[in-house]
Amino acid sequence: MAGNTFGQLFKLTSFGESHGRAIGGVLDGCPAGIQLNLEQIQVELDRRKPGQSAIVTQRKEPDTVEFYSGIFEGKTTGTPIGFAIHNTNQKSKDYSHIKDSYRPSHADYVYDKKYGFRDYRGGGRSSARETASRVVAGAIAKQFLNGIQINAFVSQVGEMKLEKGYKELDFSKIETNPVRCPDTDMAEKMEAYIKSIKKEGDTIGGVITCVLQNVPIGLGEPVFDKLHAALGAAMLSINAVKGFEYGSGFDGVKMKGSQHNDAFDTDGSTKTNLSGGVQGGISNGMDIYFNVAFKPVATVLQAYETINKEGEKVTTQGKGRHDPCVVPRAVPIVEAMAALVLADFTLLARTNKI
Amino acid sequence: MAGNTFGQLFKLTSFGESHGRAIGGVLDGCPAGIQLNLEQIQVELDRRKPGQSAIVTQRKEPDTVEFYSGIFEGKTTGTPIGFAIHNTNQKSKDYSHIKDSYRPSHADYVYDKKYGFRDYRGGGRSSARETASRVVAGAIAKQFLNGIQINAFVSQVGEMKLEKGYKELDFSKIETNPVRCPDTDMAEKMEAYIKSIKKEGDTIGGVITCVLQNVPIGLGEPVFDKLHAALGAAMLSINAVKGFEYGSGFDGVKMKGSQHNDAFDTDGSTKTNLSGGVQGGISNGMDIYFNVAFKPVATVLQAYETINKEGEKVTTQGKGRHDPCVVPRAVPIVEAMAALVLADFTLLARTNKI
Amino acid sequence: MAGNTFGQLFKLTSFGESHGRAIGGVLDGCPAGIQLNLEQIQVELDRRKPGQSAIVTQRKEPDTVEFYSGIFEGKTTGTPIGFAIHNTNQKSKDYSHIKDSYRPSHADYVYDKKYGFRDYRGGGRSSARETASRVVAGAIAKQFLNGIQINAFVSQVGEMKLEKGYKELDFSKIETNPVRCPDTDMAEKMEAYIKSIKKEGDTIGGVITCVLQNVPIGLGEPVFDKLHAALGAAMLSINAVKGFEYGSGFDGVKMKGSQHNDAFDTDGSTKTNLSGGVQGGISNGMDIYFNVAFKPVATVLQAYETINKEGEKVTTQGKGRHDPCVVPRAVPIVEAMAALVLADFTLLARTNKI
Amino acid sequence: MAGNTFGQLFKLTSFGESHGRAIGGVLDGCPAGIQLNLEQIQVELDRRKPGQSAIVTQRKEPDTVEFYSGIFEGKTTGTPIGFAIHNTNQKSKDYSHIKDSYRPSHADYVYDKKYGFRDYRGGGRSSARETASRVVAGAIAKQFLNGIQINAFVSQVGEMKLEKGYKELDFSKIETNPVRCPDTDMAEKMEAYIKSIKKEGDTIGGVITCVLQNVPIGLGEPVFDKLHAALGAAMLSINAVKGFEYGSGFDGVKMKGSQHNDAFDTDGSTKTNLSGGVQGGISNGMDIYFNVAFKPVATVLQAYETINKEGEKVTTQGKGRHDPCVVPRAVPIVEAMAALVLADFTLLARTNKI
Repeated sequence: MAGNTFGQLFKLTSFGESHGRAIGGVLDGCPAGIQLNLEQIQVELDRRKPGQSAIVTQRKEPDTVEFYSGIFEGKTTGTPIGFAIHNTNQKSKDYSHIKDSYRPSHADYVYDKKYGFRDYRGGGRSSARETASRVVAGAIAKQFLNGIQINAFVSQVGEMKLEKGYKELDFSKIETNPVRCPDTDMAEKMEAYIKSIKKEGDTIGGVITCVLQNVPIGLGEPVFDKLHAALGAAMLSINAVKGFEYGSGFDGVKMKGSQHNDAFDTDGSTKTNLSGGVQGGISNGMDIYFNVAFKPVATVLQAYETINKEGEKVTTQGKGRHDPCVVPRAVPIVEAMAALVLADFTLLARTNKI
Repeated sequence: MAGNTFGQLFKLTSFGESHGRAIGGVLDGCPAGIQLNLEQIQVELDRRKPGQSAIVTQRKEPDTVEFYSGIFEGKTTGTPIGFAIHNTNQKSKDYSHIKDSYRPSHADYVYDKKYGFRDYRGGGRSSARETASRVVAGAIAKQFLNGIQINAFVSQVGEMKLEKGYKELDFSKIETNPVRCPDTDMAEKMEAYIKSIKKEGDTIGGVITCVLQNVPIGLGEPVFDKLHAALGAAMLSINAVKGFEYGSGFDGVKMKGSQHNDAFDTDGSTKTNLSGGVQGGISNGMDIYFNVAFKPVATVLQAYETINKEGEKVTTQGKGRHDPCVVPRAVPIVEAMAALVLADFTLLARTNKI
Repeated sequence: MAGNTFGQLFKLTSFGESHGRAIGGVLDGCPAGIQLNLEQIQVELDRRKPGQSAIVTQRKEPDTVEFYSGIFEGKTTGTPIGFAIHNTNQKSKDYSHIKDSYRPSHADYVYDKKYGFRDYRGGGRSSARETASRVVAGAIAKQFLNGIQINAFVSQVGEMKLEKGYKELDFSKIETNPVRCPDTDMAEKMEAYIKSIKKEGDTIGGVITCVLQNVPIGLGEPVFDKLHAALGAAMLSINAVKGFEYGSGFDGVKMKGSQHNDAFDTDGSTKTNLSGGVQGGISNGMDIYFNVAFKPVATVLQAYETINKEGEKVTTQGKGRHDPCVVPRAVPIVEAMAALVLADFTLLARTNKI
Repeated sequence: MAGNTFGQLFKLTSFGESHGRAIGGVLDGCPAGIQLNLEQIQVELDRRKPGQSAIVTQRKEPDTVEFYSGIFEGKTTGTPIGFAIHNTNQKSKDYSHIKDSYRPSHADYVYDKKYGFRDYRGGGRSSARETASRVVAGAIAKQFLNGIQINAFVSQVGEMKLEKGYKELDFSKIETNPVRCPDTDMAEKMEAYIKSIKKEGDTIGGVITCVLQNVPIGLGEPVFDKLHAALGAAMLSINAVKGFEYGSGFDGVKMKGSQHNDAFDTDGSTKTNLSGGVQGGISNGMDIYFNVAFKPVATVLQAYETINKEGEKVTTQGKGRHDPCVVPRAVPIVEAMAALVLADFTLLARTNKI
């Protein structure tokens, strides 16, 4: 309970506030015998880290992960993997202005109400900094899931929407631009747009599309732990996410059954894939694809009016080094959460039959 | 694990196949001392049951719930509430044609692959019949949550979309028409449209909107068990659901932060509510509202080509008594799942502070 | 939570009060494909049922189990197995005298304090009648665990203690006498002693020894879910149990390490087995054996003084049809709980390695 | 699952091997607002640490805990408390002799079989070093449970058994001698005996008694999560524990019901307390007391014969700095686990009633 553990068998328990000593976690249930590429874990963290390009926050956080346990002679041992990322660039003074007032559309107010007080340095636990722990665990999950391809990318920024289906895209282009959009032309436009938003001191929302390929048939535990329900919960647990759809999604509601049904080929695959790779909550071997909607970051570098603890009106100036658009840095987080879900259901599926 | 338990403290474990002897469940963790209105539980079941109007399946299932335990002298005792709904109208012969072939966009194929064989009578466990158990438990949750208003309604059928916001609607109209759309004009059009779809032997998708009012501040357990993540998982676990969005949802991605932020009033409420009543995964006291997308029902009363277990092509005729559009009957299911989530987080929130 | 679910992957959720309509449960996570012998499940229930001999309670309860789901064409389907045992012989009047007063060393008082009121008919949920559901689930677990031998027997009644080690006993004799002690001479003495205790209207405690053989190496999940810790919790959850020891147990504390260590043979087995088949919480392939201590049944057919709800002294006469000694009927319950633990850890162990 | 999380609401997830970089854990679910005395946490750790007296292992491990999160301005924040204890005295060479052979009655063999290989430095994860994390979390639990007294002490070493009941003892004497036995005379004899055992290079078992006082009525969640079942599981999860009994325990089996029943006083307390403070799995307000049996430490400083990975016989000399008797250092561990159980059930009990 208590909300800081994800997964049932492949389980991440995470800890840490944005401006505490360290963030980190414990990954329990990771099977023994995975030959880990530790450099690759750091590569994933670097995809998420601040300061990586001109369109993300310019905070300097090296985000170096230290492993404390569960790995021996380069392999997972089956015992819990404890890890920490020390916070090195805490600059608490940047946040002193939020100690006594509540930033709109942030969690300051609800934390105070729920817990009686809060760690007011940065977002504390509500900061997206916490997601770095997810990326570490997800990177290990990816190595466990070898054979499965997990690719996320930015498919929309504000009104700019990539209309091509994922099959028309070259995933190898995702990391070639700071937006992480595999369509290079669109990526350039998005980048320019984000820069202009940043110049205004404003922020903008976006959508990440994620595609899971070569997923074996049979993952997902009906009736409540359907594969897509777990993916949805995983994505909705990421900061700033407002929506999740898979397969035909919200557009599918407009269709008739006779149009929407995916006819079988003789090998058990389907000719179309409006279902999005999941039937009845169980993977069917087809590509799983889904969209994740991110709202615009709440911190805008503009003056705004709000209230303080006493309920009095105060005027504040947004400051700090924030992302004008969260989706480029959220791509590895979406992938990490997808990997955690798949790893968990891979283990669960081992128990389905005698 | 194993997927048939929902909730952490207010926990429903459900069982049952569409054509077995009974479906039912155990509700464990329900606090002692709730004066139960058993008639009201049956009312909720009747909102979900087949045969209630001309636009839903004409199967005859009385869906009478029997309680076995956990209730004494009209009140919950704090011990598990066991209940069953006996299947009285099993008509197995209706389904004999699906024993050896796989219906497109149904779960037949994946159940066979996952478990090695399947109960081929009706959908077995993958049938939406299972959701009756959810409605029973949700009806108890509603009685526990007295003071909170939970209202779901149909806001879209196919392309027909209710453009009014929920504040312009009169929830008392929801039950006055078979579609369960509170806008009477729109309801009539939707009803006519569903009838025409039915006449074609086809089906159509739809959207249910749900509004939770008077929710206390502080429900939700960051970082993984955010309130909206749990709501999302709950909704995505309902048969035929393809998407979930709350607050500004997918439309919110097009907005700038300066437009999207909800400014505070001095009482802690917010002037706008694009956030949808949840900040950082915790309820903030404002209305929680969300949309749930349902695909068109997969069973169409038309001839179709598919494969059998041996991977050979076969041609089959869809038959049986199915819903042309699932959303009218899914309204009480959406409400039930929302109630289960709120009940669970209400109990969890009791542990947040000393 | 809420205490009515046992197991992590092979999970029993139980419900029911002694004098409600039915008791029963849901077994979730049972792998698909087990060819079930339903008669054998009833045989196990009959080993536990009242009225089976002169030394147990003479209540008449047929304890017939009905299965509602999860079984198709004789095999488990991988979906939850719902079942119920209807209460047919409720004789509530027998218990009317306990409505307003608290029986000593029963749970009446604490249920009232914990939940605000209680189902005062019989023990309600605190009655050992609940264990019938465990026997049903355990009987299924046994069929899943084919190849593992689970044998429990009575090794002590009051001061009468079987001094022979389990290896000197013939387990096939256990069911040949009403005490369920495999040493026929001792069984006769115990039987006579229990009859004399019964005649006094009194009760007596006892010990059950359980031996698990052919358990594969590797069951148990350190550090908290050690195999023996789970067995201990399982046994201590049975009504009237006051103690658990395995291997050398409480006697082992008197030994030196040089005496207690179990030397290896070249095949990995050990020459002695003071460890009791578990090292570091993990089965080592040797026999697992443990003792479970049961207190004397609290209901004595004698006059006693106690208090009522108002805290006033009252004098009452114990009545009803109770067991003079609980251990003969508890033998199948101990076996059932052991089977549930082994089934659960068998599934968990499938996830240890890549 | 996976065994490294303890508790349902007040949850410790622990990590770490004896000779890895660090051990530690995450305590999730600890309520916000506890004013923490960090020095007191270190005091508890120091009670457990090596080198504290002549009768325990002479290893030098400072065991200094560092907190990474969940504490702000001296109080718990309601967010997860991450912590680590760095291993400073790893001396891996001490253990090189066990890389390829299996120590009798240690977990070396079963770890290799279960996980395919093992961290052979010291006991790795199976080392009792892991329990330091439990002591940290338990010390926090104790501060949450203020008002409840938790006292454990050594009541038996080898054949030397303290015959006095706990009410005749002065708990303030527990920490006045290295054995942690509150009877000073007995403590001296035990100390001398342990020293003689140590001189032989041998080890000896013992018993710890624990008494919980001022526990509120109502803790414990029947039917499976009975308070004493959780205490039993907690104790049995500690390294070297072979048995658990509470209240009358194994001696209670010899009694008649008429002797064993605890008669009520008019205030709801009982005149005797053979029940040990728990009825039907729920605390009844009386003292809870239980015994925990520890086997002799397996590492003896003597030559012994064993097998290597290839199943060949090898002769080895036990070495290293080990405890001749584990119970003195295990006293704070028993208290910590009891505190974790009580904290967990305290939170659970908040959900029992409307």
